[in-house]
Amino acid sequence: MPIINVASTLEYNVSAPTNFIFSIVPAETPHQRILEESLSLSPQLDYEWLQVGEENIRNIRLEVPTGFFRLDYQARVELTPAVDESHRIDEVRYQALPAEVLAYLNPSRYCESDRLFLFASKEFGTQQTGFSRVDAICDWVNSHIDYVSGSTDASSSACDVLVNRAGVCRDFAHVSIALCRALGIPARYISGYAVDLQPPDFHGFFEAFLDGKWYLFDATRMAPVSGFVRIGLGRDAADASFATIVGEASLQNMQVSALVDDATTGNEQTNDAISTS
Amino acid sequence: MPIINVASTLEYNVSAPTNFIFSIVPAETPHQRILEESLSLSPQLDYEWLQVGEENIRNIRLEVPTGFFRLDYQARVELTPAVDESHRIDEVRYQALPAEVLAYLNPSRYCESDRLFLFASKEFGTQQTGFSRVDAICDWVNSHIDYVSGSTDASSSACDVLVNRAGVCRDFAHVSIALCRALGIPARYISGYAVDLQPPDFHGFFEAFLDGKWYLFDATRMAPVSGFVRIGLGRDAADASFATIVGEASLQNMQVSALVDDATTGNEQTNDAISTS
Amino acid sequence: MPIINVASTLEYNVSAPTNFIFSIVPAETPHQRILEESLSLSPQLDYEWLQVGEENIRNIRLEVPTGFFRLDYQARVELTPAVDESHRIDEVRYQALPAEVLAYLNPSRYCESDRLFLFASKEFGTQQTGFSRVDAICDWVNSHIDYVSGSTDASSSACDVLVNRAGVCRDFAHVSIALCRALGIPARYISGYAVDLQPPDFHGFFEAFLDGKWYLFDATRMAPVSGFVRIGLGRDAADASFATIVGEASLQNMQVSALVDDATTGNEQTNDAISTS
Amino acid sequence: MPIINVASTLEYNVSAPTNFIFSIVPAETPHQRILEESLSLSPQLDYEWLQVGEENIRNIRLEVPTGFFRLDYQARVELTPAVDESHRIDEVRYQALPAEVLAYLNPSRYCESDRLFLFASKEFGTQQTGFSRVDAICDWVNSHIDYVSGSTDASSSACDVLVNRAGVCRDFAHVSIALCRALGIPARYISGYAVDLQPPDFHGFFEAFLDGKWYLFDATRMAPVSGFVRIGLGRDAADASFATIVGEASLQNMQVSALVDDATTGNEQTNDAISTS
Repeated sequence: MPIINVASTLEYNVSAPTNFIFSIVPAETPHQRILEESLSLSPQLDYEWLQVGEENIRNIRLEVPTGFFRLDYQARVELTPAVDESHRIDEVRYQALPAEVLAYLNPSRYCESDRLFLFASKEFGTQQTGFSRVDAICDWVNSHIDYVSGSTDASSSACDVLVNRAGVCRDFAHVSIALCRALGIPARYISGYAVDLQPPDFHGFFEAFLDGKWYLFDATRMAPVSGFVRIGLGRDAADASFATIVGEASLQNMQVSALVDDATTGNEQTNDAISTS
Repeated sequence: MPIINVASTLEYNVSAPTNFIFSIVPAETPHQRILEESLSLSPQLDYEWLQVGEENIRNIRLEVPTGFFRLDYQARVELTPAVDESHRIDEVRYQALPAEVLAYLNPSRYCESDRLFLFASKEFGTQQTGFSRVDAICDWVNSHIDYVSGSTDASSSACDVLVNRAGVCRDFAHVSIALCRALGIPARYISGYAVDLQPPDFHGFFEAFLDGKWYLFDATRMAPVSGFVRIGLGRDAADASFATIVGEASLQNMQVSALVDDATTGNEQTNDAISTS
Repeated sequence: MPIINVASTLEYNVSAPTNFIFSIVPAETPHQRILEESLSLSPQLDYEWLQVGEENIRNIRLEVPTGFFRLDYQARVELTPAVDESHRIDEVRYQALPAEVLAYLNPSRYCESDRLFLFASKEFGTQQTGFSRVDAICDWVNSHIDYVSGSTDASSSACDVLVNRAGVCRDFAHVSIALCRALGIPARYISGYAVDLQPPDFHGFFEAFLDGKWYLFDATRMAPVSGFVRIGLGRDAADASFATIVGEASLQNMQVSALVDDATTGNEQTNDAISTS
Repeated sequence: MPIINVASTLEYNVSAPTNFIFSIVPAETPHQRILEESLSLSPQLDYEWLQVGEENIRNIRLEVPTGFFRLDYQARVELTPAVDESHRIDEVRYQALPAEVLAYLNPSRYCESDRLFLFASKEFGTQQTGFSRVDAICDWVNSHIDYVSGSTDASSSACDVLVNRAGVCRDFAHVSIALCRALGIPARYISGYAVDLQPPDFHGFFEAFLDGKWYLFDATRMAPVSGFVRIGLGRDAADASFATIVGEASLQNMQVSALVDDATTGNEQTNDAISTS
């Protein structure tokens, strides 16, 4: 069972009293166990654990006075993903989808699936349904969109990126999610840590709901899915930014890392389907 | 306490087996009680009650074979809204917002609040905070946007409508919601029945989270808020369409009505703040 | 030399005094000669011939009083296109482009070429340059966009259509023009009559500037290019609508036809390059 | 008669042979006379004077080899604007507009006037027509849009800016132009030098066609219209960028200046209407 050491350091210049919500702590799920963790703030301010949504997402909320502010977080996380044979995983008929996944079929700010029915149908409509169809979407996104740092901004949506043909990890996820939804496959955005991601950073990827489970996918193909540590989730990146800031603060420094702790890693067979929800 | 008789009839031509989810049944809330109701389908098909989200929203899911399909629904609904003095209702500081309302600050498909920070700040930034500020947003939307049937379509968003300056009820709600969120006021979309709405139809309006409660608002000013019967809710209209259709069906006929049952109505004092969540 | 009989009838209900500019009369060019023509208006109003732009485009301007208005136009047009061997036609280097074609490299209302550099480069960047590259663009547009009447409206642009994947003739032209410009190939919109177009209507297509000439292209592939009779031209459809109306008038009836006059037609070899400017 | 000394220096790092078209030289018009000018290039490359459009716009085209490239331009320009009393200047009826200005009523890449008919009509429809209405548009733009360097990019259009409420000079011009066109007033983009502009830079403003002449306007109100020296013009900034670059070059340094030569300046009475076309 792989154990991942994750860490992040964030430094801000705060020029007026500012509220922060940080979404940087790995979630506790049946397949993702926090073995140990530490959080330190400088100055040592009070903070509140905030659970958002029904999943065990743990955000940190606090008020920071004017001045310098630094947050350090570290954790050892054990991943015990459910690994299934991808070729056996089919899509769920609309009629049989559980009520709680239906919202992930709806269009969202950055995933305008309502505009992409014909696009998705023309590109993926005749494809074999199931895990392999979502995989084909990832392949398509990967080969049609260039990964270019700085090519998009906070207002760029899936449709923008399909035109501009460039984006970063969140954009790759948004396009994939929008295409899945347009085909009737529930899909949601996941933020997290990713082992071997270069350059090291928080990562954005997605899950598709297939055969009764949420399976992990990443159209950037920049790091193995088996090394993803989930932090937050939502309809798209609007629900899962690593820091929400109300006030006046500028990020001065950010360091993120995710490293495999021991030799018991592996599972990089790309044909395996990984589920950690 | 006003009692409202609501009714809707929907008729479809179904040209291939089709899945429907209908969102036409009033929710049960502490302030909205269903005294009696009846649902009849023709043909008499099996259906499933589907509860979506944490609120007591009751949708109807069923599979309809090829042919003609008709749904009739009627209910007697007692409204016992909490009525508060609007001038005492202030906004909630970001730091004090409950976790479950935070998602209603995020931008959504039809409410791109992330693009409207400066717009909202320039138009409403110096306004008295609280209920009156949301009311001022409704006034602004009402006087700057024309109500024009057919002027928008299923892909029109708040930003589109701010440019085109025309829309229908869902657009009035979307613009208002987006402006609220841009000011830090959680806001969500409500679908429902509305007494005295002309022409009779399902209605779209919104709630803003103030002083710890969700208060009803309607920028169209087309019907008294005190006569609104809530059906569904969500981040925007994407979460609350009266019928979601997967298959091939065309609406042939739709009749909607909402009438006050007895003389105990009233409450049209526009300065009162109405809460029915 | 093919001779084409073109005709159009337009009927309006005019509910307030209204100004019209009609762009329905074939241009006189070295390759397109008007053998005879007739124009009749009912009521018999005064009108002005309006020449717009440096090409011999002849529009009709008039003021129409309240009431019924009908315009009938017919012409016999002789086409003597320059027919070149397409495989010999190369693109013109930027440095050598004549000054008067440079504006047709700029983005326009419906052809946002400035957003499509990467798109065009990824899809067509390695293709053989010249006539065959523009032909490849037409093939791509034809296979990736569905022709669907009513799928777009007067505000739909090339980028919209690339996302929605449906459009009509003007949209096919806009997407093609935008992609040409993004590759450095000047391209412009042409309105006209088209022999064998089904259903009969005014047509929108485009020209690309190659090897010192403007060559005709049509990504809809709905009618042979050799049977196109040019009316107007411009940067995109904004410059070439068949009727510009300032006032209040609604189109009641429109009939358009374009028929080959005699047996001397042909030239439908798709490998030939047709130039009629 | 004011005499303006204008100068610009541009330095590029050219990493592959690159084609440039520079639009930095003042136009010769009946109201703008070039008394003397000098152009020097380093290295001393051949260049071509390129006249684009019917106005006397003089662009410089050249091919630059890999390496450092510098351009210095200086001119003494005498301005003899036609100065009219603004309150006498009315709009021209559509029916009477000369053919050559009609294209400036059409929507363009950055001025989507086709979407703004209702917006313009609601905000300015009841205003006194003529010069004062265009002036009112400038006032509105000035008070509703913030001037924020870096707030927009090369793909930002008038509709974007109306939502985002921030922009730079080209955006102020685009919004104004789009609103004019939506009201039936031909309007076009002008690039130029502007006396007293802080910080010194090329400037973008616009002209509206009123009473048979093109009058200068500037919604930024950052410099007196009487000190504007026209370089290029077009439907919007797409037609008038100071440098069009095909190849690989990065701007290293840019200096622009415009200074009144002697004491015979003035004319800053804002009620005067200035025409220099």
